[in-house]
Amino acid sequence: MNVKTKFTNCMDRNNSLVCIGLDSDVKKLPSHLEKEKNPQFAFNKEIIDSTSDLVCCYKPNSAFYEANGARGVEQLKMTCDYIKNKYPEIPIILDAKRADIGNTNDGYTAYTFDYLGVDAVTLQPYLGSEALAPFLSRKDKVAIILCRTSNPGAGEMQDVKVDGEPYYIYLAKKVKEEWNKLDNCMLVVGATYPEELAKVRKLVGDMTLLVPGVGSQGGDIEQSVRAGMNSEKKGMIINSSRGIIFASDGLDFAQKARQEAEKLRNEINNYRK
Amino acid sequence: MNVKTKFTNCMDRNNSLVCIGLDSDVKKLPSHLEKEKNPQFAFNKEIIDSTSDLVCCYKPNSAFYEANGARGVEQLKMTCDYIKNKYPEIPIILDAKRADIGNTNDGYTAYTFDYLGVDAVTLQPYLGSEALAPFLSRKDKVAIILCRTSNPGAGEMQDVKVDGEPYYIYLAKKVKEEWNKLDNCMLVVGATYPEELAKVRKLVGDMTLLVPGVGSQGGDIEQSVRAGMNSEKKGMIINSSRGIIFASDGLDFAQKARQEAEKLRNEINNYRK
Repeated sequence: MNVKTKFTNCMDRNNSLVCIGLDSDVKKLPSHLEKEKNPQFAFNKEIIDSTSDLVCCYKPNSAFYEANGARGVEQLKMTCDYIKNKYPEIPIILDAKRADIGNTNDGYTAYTFDYLGVDAVTLQPYLGSEALAPFLSRKDKVAIILCRTSNPGAGEMQDVKVDGEPYYIYLAKKVKEEWNKLDNCMLVVGATYPEELAKVRKLVGDMTLLVPGVGSQGGDIEQSVRAGMNSEKKGMIINSSRGIIFASDGLDFAQKARQEAEKLRNEINNYRK
Repeated sequence: MNVKTKFTNCMDRNNSLVCIGLDSDVKKLPSHLEKEKNPQFAFNKEIIDSTSDLVCCYKPNSAFYEANGARGVEQLKMTCDYIKNKYPEIPIILDAKRADIGNTNDGYTAYTFDYLGVDAVTLQPYLGSEALAPFLSRKDKVAIILCRTSNPGAGEMQDVKVDGEPYYIYLAKKVKEEWNKLDNCMLVVGATYPEELAKVRKLVGDMTLLVPGVGSQGGDIEQSVRAGMNSEKKGMIINSSRGIIFASDGLDFAQKARQEAEKLRNEINNYRK
């Protein structure tokens, strides 16, 4: 099965464009999990079991595991293994925002695709497509390139004009016309910038976009969905992290996460009609 | 002591601008180390003990440890701890090329500065200075921003013209004038591009530049040194990784690494006169 089909199949099966960001910062976990040997994994396991019928994919962010050192990386691997074994139909994106020169990227593909075994990884564009070849040449995996990020200061480097157009548009064109030869690219565009999202959608045809920034970051769901859907009323992976996984810090955290995920799924679907 | 003073002090003590890149890919280690419980650490330990009087700093690249999973990250930590305990005067750069939105960068500062305890980290510029605040606000640590990278395809994203000047020049100005408020920034400029290196040097005054790309990547040492030195005939951290650490794959690997490091130091110093 084509790896992109895995994403669309899961969207269809769960009727969902919701991606849950497993940003399981060890300092923010419910206090009753402190006694666990692997608190980040214990937390993720409950979140996953409670939401597996509501998502189109999961997206752990490597930073929150690395912050916990080797013990955190181990729990990230346990999380990925758990999803792959119990819910093999659900794709996993590693949010790692990596990129280095070519031979070093071989180290990062070993981390993401071999060790963790995820389906997709987020990547920085600054070194160019030649450096990203170890990712772009993998047609069994998805390369998700940062295009217009969701943070307030994104414009400083991304809106700079190149031949009269913003730099992120220059990049989106490059990805569509040159980097996506194996049809294995997606782009990141933040929900906090619906106008920019609409511009990118117009440019890239039906390419799937990873859209962070709803929930805690304040991106508007209706505007994002209307701006970002493709011709099949899909083509978006809409991520919420803190707004779902930390909806409660009590014993009911997984149940509350389910409620928030369901609410987000339904709200998104409402605007897809 | 100011963290940048730690770099210049070590340059002066060892009369060296050489940084050894500890890109200790587990698949490339001498075969006699395979039996070691921690082969990456065992390798690094010998390289470090054999070269500690020849370098201005060490630069492990996180990718080659992550490729080995949690076990690799543990050995990266062992390596950093070893340097900090035995050679506290030698600075450590973590080559990680990280960057995410602000609250996620807190995870990466926890990884680099708290868990590993390094002095400096390499960073991607694409999300802008607002996102990089968790790094830029640390005056006890150095933020080394990718400016003109050493890879053959660097120009695709970095040479694009912004108001008639290349994008990497736009970035270099930003860093000098705005991002470097705490005087804790450095820039990465590849030795494979001496003309670009000269342009950046002209622009940033005496700011220190991390210069990868000599050795295996083919950057010319004489051209780089002449283009990149600051007014004090320093201001450069010239990195070689594979060309030094993998000079031999036999029992004599550390001795051969010493020879290569000394050769590089002397050649560089020859052009500093």
